[in-house]
Amino acid sequence: MNLQNRPVPKDQKSAVVLLSGGLDSATVLAMARQAGYQVHAISFRYGQRHTVELDRALQQAKLQCLNQHLVVDIDLAQFGGSALTSCSIAVPKHNCDAEIGNSIPVTYVPARNTVFLSLALAYAETIAAHDIFIGVNALDYSGYPDCRPEYIEAFERMANLATKIGVEGGLIKIHTPLISLTKAEIIARGLELGVDYSATSSCYDPDPVTGQPCGRCDACLLRQRGFQQNAMSDPCLATVRK
Amino acid sequence: MNLQNRPVPKDQKSAVVLLSGGLDSATVLAMARQAGYQVHAISFRYGQRHTVELDRALQQAKLQCLNQHLVVDIDLAQFGGSALTSCSIAVPKHNCDAEIGNSIPVTYVPARNTVFLSLALAYAETIAAHDIFIGVNALDYSGYPDCRPEYIEAFERMANLATKIGVEGGLIKIHTPLISLTKAEIIARGLELGVDYSATSSCYDPDPVTGQPCGRCDACLLRQRGFQQNAMSDPCLATVRK
Repeated sequence: MNLQNRPVPKDQKSAVVLLSGGLDSATVLAMARQAGYQVHAISFRYGQRHTVELDRALQQAKLQCLNQHLVVDIDLAQFGGSALTSCSIAVPKHNCDAEIGNSIPVTYVPARNTVFLSLALAYAETIAAHDIFIGVNALDYSGYPDCRPEYIEAFERMANLATKIGVEGGLIKIHTPLISLTKAEIIARGLELGVDYSATSSCYDPDPVTGQPCGRCDACLLRQRGFQQNAMSDPCLATVRK
Repeated sequence: MNLQNRPVPKDQKSAVVLLSGGLDSATVLAMARQAGYQVHAISFRYGQRHTVELDRALQQAKLQCLNQHLVVDIDLAQFGGSALTSCSIAVPKHNCDAEIGNSIPVTYVPARNTVFLSLALAYAETIAAHDIFIGVNALDYSGYPDCRPEYIEAFERMANLATKIGVEGGLIKIHTPLISLTKAEIIARGLELGVDYSATSSCYDPDPVTGQPCGRCDACLLRQRGFQQNAMSDPCLATVRK
């Protein structure tokens, strides 16, 4: 079913969805809408080296006909410590996905998901939403500690103690519908829901002018394998190679 | 002992201290320094209706000779929902502290301590600090859910799962040295350590021009009682009444 044509029920519950503009969050957005939520998306201008992912977040919000999309400025680059926010740390490149390591990579941004989820929590509380969706997954996750199920459970527990809606208004739930899916399964689910993956960006080091993916960073390789397992090529990489 | 004259040991551990410019955080700053930490303070320009507390944070950083003081911009006013960030919600005023209620007041800012602690965590991780200090207390705390010990414990647990330093480098500790102290005990401790309380601001609704406290909001009344119990008047209020 194409999400753009889905009827909106009157008693719809609100949810906040973290929308980076990447493949995962675009899929989660579609899943939250398909589950019947009125979606309020939140994206972050956090000092990332490239803004193409934010452009794609805006595109996805438009393509999926969102009611609300908030872009929050929070400069994580001032803390440093990541290849995604500092030009002095190079993004690792590989020839194939088998070369991707298991340790926490230099593309890890200190406490990023915690900062993002905290701001999503503030947003949720002010719109009386008890549901927050985030596109973390524990399989193809590149070794980030803040993508693991035990982290999400701990955040959810903390959120219920932290807030007025948690204390007075019932359970706050952090939804992670991708947590146990492979990249291939995520893509398959998104394709079923009509997600336009050509309007997403996952690359850690895209071309600064064209925004096109490098094709050789961890994120590009994991994504590429996911599309291959769905017997197709990455629509973003396909564009590059034309 | 006056903190300004304290010698700095060579093997000093670093800590991040949340510094609002209020009475509590000024005291915590002095306590963290007295405990031997090299303090990196973090303050927030978060869309608060008045900036006097931020001015006081800068003053405290100077008075207590800090090595590092980071002021982070994060606009929580865009979410709304609090008398501290929205002019459309009035700050409650009382004639005496006995009138202060027990329920969560309109001065509660949705998820504020969670957002602030998350950013402090990002800062701590990039400077390899395992210690974060925050001036919450569970007695004279005005009913905020994110000032309770169970909340802090849940945040600490989450922080250790969220971060590279938590996973690889040992325990992250959220220190709350004021958690079980009354306002009077906090002030007594601060006075021992030489804290200059005339250079602090706790008022929820200070004069927009002079920055002087209203004397009748929850924060003013709790603070006033604390000074009275130390047989002195609030140095900020005393200035107003001159």
